[in-house]
Amino acid sequence: MEIIYTPIGTIHTPFNDIKNMPIQPTGASHVEGKIEIRQEFMEGLQDLDGFSHIILLYHLHKVKSHKLVVIPFLDTQPRGLFSTRAPKRPNPIGLSVVKLLKIEKNILCVSHLDMLDGTPLLDIKPYVPEFERYESIKIGWVENARGRAKKQKSDDRFR
Amino acid sequence: MEIIYTPIGTIHTPFNDIKNMPIQPTGASHVEGKIEIRQEFMEGLQDLDGFSHIILLYHLHKVKSHKLVVIPFLDTQPRGLFSTRAPKRPNPIGLSVVKLLKIEKNILCVSHLDMLDGTPLLDIKPYVPEFERYESIKIGWVENARGRAKKQKSDDRFR
Repeated sequence: MEIIYTPIGTIHTPFNDIKNMPIQPTGASHVEGKIEIRQEFMEGLQDLDGFSHIILLYHLHKVKSHKLVVIPFLDTQPRGLFSTRAPKRPNPIGLSVVKLLKIEKNILCVSHLDMLDGTPLLDIKPYVPEFERYESIKIGWVENARGRAKKQKSDDRFR
Repeated sequence: MEIIYTPIGTIHTPFNDIKNMPIQPTGASHVEGKIEIRQEFMEGLQDLDGFSHIILLYHLHKVKSHKLVVIPFLDTQPRGLFSTRAPKRPNPIGLSVVKLLKIEKNILCVSHLDMLDGTPLLDIKPYVPEFERYESIKIGWVENARGRAKKQKSDDRFR
């Protein structure tokens, strides 16, 4: 079974190489950029300006293969891929919650970007914390790396 | 530009019709089901059992068209699609954070399911609140519907 998607726009960021990038949006508060939405989808942006944060789903377009066990940036041990946010996934879909600064026609100005320049955008959803709010959360191996995602930069292990 | 994905598994839920379903996982705490991961991806599930909650990205397989302005379940006013979680999207990718109960080989037992039975799974990511944690969040039109996502059920407006 094949599922075919077409980008709704393009994410423009300052990053042209996967090395030395922020590994999560919370480590990219200073990173601003623009998202260009294709004209045909502009009407769907109505009401989005009331939200301070939005969820971006995008295609990790430089990924050409996957690895089921990886050593993530936040660890020194091999971990199962699906317990990590590593980019080389069977379906390389990226997820980032970013801050929406303003909307001008079909251009979204945002901060907290942690993806490559030219990344094809698949979907935007409003970020509503109560939709995903849980108590008693266990975060597995990431527990040992608590707080480090903000400062850690990427290297080229997933090139 | 076409992006082609292949499901990594299938989500089995009690829901065979889009009517009268929970509209968000937080309204589906009692809804349990199983996710069957394809054998070839089983190795990637290592270490996932340490996490209490996981992010599912899936293909809304019954969606055959999109609408750029919709009246969402939580409102009576038309809203831009991208400011809603409505399913009829240009790229119909669903996102749900669900509770992971246990893993038995390639089967994940989970609760908080809010998607149709037979939904093709695209990706699993670990749910780590600090990766998406922000302060001063504004939730636009959803502000008027605060707390209602837990009880609201779907109707057939997006059939």
